[in-house]
Amino acid sequence: MSLLMDNQFGELPVDKSVDTKFFLESVAYLPPFFDCLGSKVFLPIKSDISGNITKIRSVYDKDPAKYATLQQIVESEKEAYGTEWPKVGATLALMWLKRGLRFIQILLQSLADGEKDENNPNLIRVNITKAYDQALKKYHGWLVQKIFKAALLAAPYKSDFIKALSKGQEVREEDCMASVRQFLINYTATVDAIYEMYTTLNAELDYSV
Amino acid sequence: MSLLMDNQFGELPVDKSVDTKFFLESVAYLPPFFDCLGSKVFLPIKSDISGNITKIRSVYDKDPAKYATLQQIVESEKEAYGTEWPKVGATLALMWLKRGLRFIQILLQSLADGEKDENNPNLIRVNITKAYDQALKKYHGWLVQKIFKAALLAAPYKSDFIKALSKGQEVREEDCMASVRQFLINYTATVDAIYEMYTTLNAELDYSV
Ligand SMILES: CCCCCCCCCCCCC/C=C/[C@@H](O)[C@H](CO[C@@H]1O[C@H](CO)[C@H](O)[C@H](OS(=O)(=O)O)[C@H]1O)NC(=O)CCCCCCCCCCC
Ligand SMILES: CCCCCCCCCCCCC/C=C/[C@@H](O)[C@H](CO[C@@H]1O[C@H](CO)[C@H](O)[C@H](OS(=O)(=O)O)[C@H]1O)NC(=O)CCCCCCCCCCC
Repeated sequence: MSLLMDNQFGELPVDKSVDTKFFLESVAYLPPFFDCLGSKVFLPIKSDISGNITKIRSVYDKDPAKYATLQQIVESEKEAYGTEWPKVGATLALMWLKRGLRFIQILLQSLADGEKDENNPNLIRVNITKAYDQALKKYHGWLVQKIFKAALLAAPYKSDFIKALSKGQEVREEDCMASVRQFLINYTATVDAIYEMYTTLNAELDYSV
Repeated sequence: MSLLMDNQFGELPVDKSVDTKFFLESVAYLPPFFDCLGSKVFLPIKSDISGNITKIRSVYDKDPAKYATLQQIVESEKEAYGTEWPKVGATLALMWLKRGLRFIQILLQSLADGEKDENNPNLIRVNITKAYDQALKKYHGWLVQKIFKAALLAAPYKSDFIKALSKGQEVREEDCMASVRQFLINYTATVDAIYEMYTTLNAELDYSV
């Protein structure tokens, strides 16, 4: 599980604020996660997520002190943008990015929990579908949902996915899953904190694309 | 039809060489064509084509004199790359770009020729499908073909497509189609010349994605 373990997320402080610089450094390692899915079909997703990260970084770079935490970014933009907000700026980018992060979290958690299709134990479609249903489906119109269903058929076998997560090394499934569990601790806490912030600041939208 | 008419392709010289600079200037106006299809689902296509153009431009910019025509680029790369060629560099980018250009050409030609589904005269699915079958299908595996079929359902009505091509102005279908026919003269000649060059230089590949 070196792909994710090499870049663990940091522990959150008690106030659950998320340090922008550390966050951007850690999420930068996630777009390659989509390469682990093994098909070029997932490139548009990878580039959507990379675009979110670039957008947030470009706001941060304008004034690193002012935007030291993700909360400060979203609050500043709320002040700055008026009625356009929250469908704007880094607030919008993070709104979507967190859904991709949640997708990854639920997928990994489901695998670590041993959830599987007993008839096809080497497929991960049930895990991907669970992650999609909980993290993304409601934000997608019927067309994108249909495209998702088609793309799902390109999902890799569990054994290939684990190998890719482990950067090509053959590791035992249990060893990989132990690392996944370790990774998920701070990662899940960070994603949860971002979701809470969007609720607290009334920054969440539920339009679908 | 101002979107395309504002940026007509130039007439080819007798040797059918394609001037790189003029070509790049003219194709730069084509990615917005995919916005005329009206759905965000087509963004990955737009960005694939934009990527091809950027790749060709970056090669050209290295030595505009040496790469004055598209033929010179492909021939130089054939010399430079050895066995990697032609799945490399601007040769690969233009190989795919020309398929997108052919797709647009066949779609517009089919509309200008008045081909339609008599039962649904305001749909352009028959025209899109014809363009896809002739220009792209054989280069797509079953999965991308399946995704195409889903995406086709997001195709706009003919009247909306014509309005978008005309930059939001309400023009009569015949007037728009007269402009399309005008545009297609040099455009088709250019696309044909690029295809011929790929055949002549043995630069064509038929792997599918
Ligand atoms: C020849 C045939 C061609 C046919 C072409 C068909 C192409 C089909 C394209 C499918 C869609 C690709 C996924 C991208 C979807 C995106 O539309 C959405 C919204 O994207 C957001 O939109 C905002 C504006 O509303 C801003 O622009 C955001 O940008 S901003 O930074 O500017 O603010 C942007 O992220 N993101 C999403 O839904 C996020 C997706 C995360 C995905 C997570 C994993 C799913 C894994 C699935 C595994 C099976
Ligand atoms: C949450 C759910 C998410 C699910 C995600 C699903 C996403 C589905 C993505 C669908 C594919 C999008 C289209 C892109 C396809 C591309 O894969 C291909 C080959 O692309 C080429 O590949 C080369 C290497 O082999 C180089 O990288 C080229 O790049 S290089 O410049 O580096 O050399 C590159 O263009 N281009 C193509 O097939 C060209 C496509 C032209 C399209 C023309 C119009 C079709 C219109 C259809 C209208 C109905």
